[in-house]
Amino acid sequence: MDATTSRRKHDANSPMVKEEDERLRKANEPARLAISYHSLYSGKMETVAKCPVRSMDDFAIWYTPGVAEPCKAIAKDPSLVYEYTSKWNTVAVVSDGTRVLGLGDIGPLAGLPVMEGKALLFKYLGGVDAVPVCLGTKDPEHIIQAVKWMAPSFGGINLEDISQPKCFHVLDRLRSELDIPVWHDDQQGTATIVLAGLMNALKLVGKKMGGAHIAMIGAGSANIAIARIIIAAGVDVRNITMTDSQGILNPARKDLESDYHEKWYMATHSNAEGKQGKDREAMVGADVVIAASRPGPGVITKDMVRAMADDPIVFVTANPVPEIWPWEALEAGASIVATGRSDFPNQVNNSLVFPAVFRGALDVRASHITDEMCLAAAKELALVAEEKGLRNDSIVPSMDDWDAFPRQAAAIGMKAIEQGLARKRFNRKELLDRATAIIGRSRRETKAMMDNGFIAPVPGEMSK
Amino acid sequence: MDATTSRRKHDANSPMVKEEDERLRKANEPARLAISYHSLYSGKMETVAKCPVRSMDDFAIWYTPGVAEPCKAIAKDPSLVYEYTSKWNTVAVVSDGTRVLGLGDIGPLAGLPVMEGKALLFKYLGGVDAVPVCLGTKDPEHIIQAVKWMAPSFGGINLEDISQPKCFHVLDRLRSELDIPVWHDDQQGTATIVLAGLMNALKLVGKKMGGAHIAMIGAGSANIAIARIIIAAGVDVRNITMTDSQGILNPARKDLESDYHEKWYMATHSNAEGKQGKDREAMVGADVVIAASRPGPGVITKDMVRAMADDPIVFVTANPVPEIWPWEALEAGASIVATGRSDFPNQVNNSLVFPAVFRGALDVRASHITDEMCLAAAKELALVAEEKGLRNDSIVPSMDDWDAFPRQAAAIGMKAIEQGLARKRFNRKELLDRATAIIGRSRRETKAMMDNGFIAPVPGEMSK
Repeated sequence: MDATTSRRKHDANSPMVKEEDERLRKANEPARLAISYHSLYSGKMETVAKCPVRSMDDFAIWYTPGVAEPCKAIAKDPSLVYEYTSKWNTVAVVSDGTRVLGLGDIGPLAGLPVMEGKALLFKYLGGVDAVPVCLGTKDPEHIIQAVKWMAPSFGGINLEDISQPKCFHVLDRLRSELDIPVWHDDQQGTATIVLAGLMNALKLVGKKMGGAHIAMIGAGSANIAIARIIIAAGVDVRNITMTDSQGILNPARKDLESDYHEKWYMATHSNAEGKQGKDREAMVGADVVIAASRPGPGVITKDMVRAMADDPIVFVTANPVPEIWPWEALEAGASIVATGRSDFPNQVNNSLVFPAVFRGALDVRASHITDEMCLAAAKELALVAEEKGLRNDSIVPSMDDWDAFPRQAAAIGMKAIEQGLARKRFNRKELLDRATAIIGRSRRETKAMMDNGFIAPVPGEMSK
Repeated sequence: MDATTSRRKHDANSPMVKEEDERLRKANEPARLAISYHSLYSGKMETVAKCPVRSMDDFAIWYTPGVAEPCKAIAKDPSLVYEYTSKWNTVAVVSDGTRVLGLGDIGPLAGLPVMEGKALLFKYLGGVDAVPVCLGTKDPEHIIQAVKWMAPSFGGINLEDISQPKCFHVLDRLRSELDIPVWHDDQQGTATIVLAGLMNALKLVGKKMGGAHIAMIGAGSANIAIARIIIAAGVDVRNITMTDSQGILNPARKDLESDYHEKWYMATHSNAEGKQGKDREAMVGADVVIAASRPGPGVITKDMVRAMADDPIVFVTANPVPEIWPWEALEAGASIVATGRSDFPNQVNNSLVFPAVFRGALDVRASHITDEMCLAAAKELALVAEEKGLRNDSIVPSMDDWDAFPRQAAAIGMKAIEQGLARKRFNRKELLDRATAIIGRSRRETKAMMDNGFIAPVPGEMSK
């Protein structure tokens, strides 16, 4: 029984507990609405024509007989597929449903609502057309094969909610074997936004990236990728202490050596202090905790936050409920708290990243998305937040900071060009204008669908 | 050198030749526009939200944390995936690009413009959300495996432009191993619309299905499927004479016995008269010719039409150019001519069929699409045309006969219910109303996209 539960038992009618009840009710509101709204709309995305259909005669152009001409042209010059079809803007969101949110292996059918949500974000925030593809297999070789077979239709691949360690292998293989960008959002997306937040949080508390001691709770795909990216950005691996369910990673964990290359690297290079124990011990004296473990609350307790260094920075990214409720972390003295949820401040949500990353990668027809491109995106994100004015409850742009998306896209595109991975060249202004136009159109389109009645208002709201 | 070419050589300035030049120019117009329009619009379909996004707060419902609730519900009861996601209305258009239109094996990239055109027709005519999936493999076992892996995301599978004989095997296997409808449009779609046209054409010339002698030029997947369906509808297999590139199929064609089961059946059961020779000989004295062979003109000549029985009925379905130009067939005495093209009368285009078939199958959540369901659709199509008034240049509904689509959908749905293959039950009126509403919404949506400027006008037209 943790402190909160204990207090609730004794002071059920106190004003403080009533306030907490209200916070919990508000935090659970999206879950309550989700079932009724999902049932009402039966899916989140639909297809719609983007070419004119003035009369049936136009089908002679878009379909037989006219369509034979672009087909023949592509057969002669395959690069024309980017001119004559939607491949240039279409991304497959691929999952096997083995690690959906914090829900574990719930399978491809149960994972579909998440992939459709992802497709919604892809379009609304990045102007990218995304297609959910939930696979009826868990075998990593099958996943690789399925993606390779379907690749001709797509301009990019977003891997999602695939369990580790296979997710590392699947990503590495597909990155090396396909010539379109392949991205595992749970790795790179999360790492990019956390890095952006970390940069600004450290600025606010006056600490340096190179000297910060960082406890990382959880050694799943997200935290492994976060470690790789923050190390690339200047964090000293020796100052990281990472835990998994068995405790702090250390060189005695020989079980990791053969199958978990990435965790084994951390076990043998991190934790120079030689801390021993579990999550609690890892956090003692740490400047920052980055948790990407399992849904809370109660995974991290107030006591554990109190044991950190001065001005503790707390990233608790588990979904749907963070490892500790933000108000609890603040009550325990946290200086800055970030979560993955949109209903709290400092949302380090990869939704701030992946739509823009793909926008930028697609616009220059990048063949890959590199770690350097992720760093460029994180720096641009941090800059957007800084220009707005940094505050402890505003370390990353919010989802309402629209310019964060085209600016990241331009940063990604420029880095791809610099790295020689782009098939099309633009200057920064061109990329920014292009991304701004495409994303702006996408938002206006959604609004038009609502205004024109193609999206019904939610219950209790009036139709326009 | 056929008669037409010969005449052109000698009378290049005659009024008759000028008229023919004008016809040819008109017939080639879609091809000319197709390249410039495909380049201008860069794809035919996009994704758009069908759920409200009032502010960023709504993402807490459609994505994390709220989305976890429908996920958990589907994990408990998989049938809820039809309530909470777009699976109920989403079809994959799957091709390996090995037999695209009349262009042969041009590969998955070059096949993409056709699959996108198909997706456009699916939505505009059937209200179905279709996703093109062009596969980078030609191996039938790989195609089967790829479709089985991706099936969780889809409510149905439309196979397209896959070469024979593997297309038969792929269809049969997937029909038996998946619990969602699988359809090979080049087989069932073409067969359904040809049967509808044949029923009405025979009525017009006063001949009976059971007594009609039918020459079938080509023994590809389309004609094999057409034969199966017209036989099921009353044609006597002994009255069919079918050819392939080697001539009239007959029991001496032992090469077909092991690998081409479907052609072997025709070789051993058709052609009771024992005709010998090639296409020309097959057509002598026939009441009907059904050609689904290779692009013309000149595959069938005027002479060959002249050698048919009285009131010849000519179905020439090759794309993009029929086996004989319709005006040539009429000049040679054909009573009724039907093609696959939208720019001539009597378009026996499977576009009249597949959007409606899937609308009907999806609405009742049918597990399969049977031949009996195809027959039901063909009868309804024939009836729609008959109610409008049969004429020699109007034997099937045109694409402008909107009620043909919901009426077929209702016929398909009712047959599925009758056959015990439907997971949802409606009466005919309910199915008709539902299909009418969904398809009508789809057309209004396309118009709204044009009216609101999300689809730019074609060059030379004013924006509204």
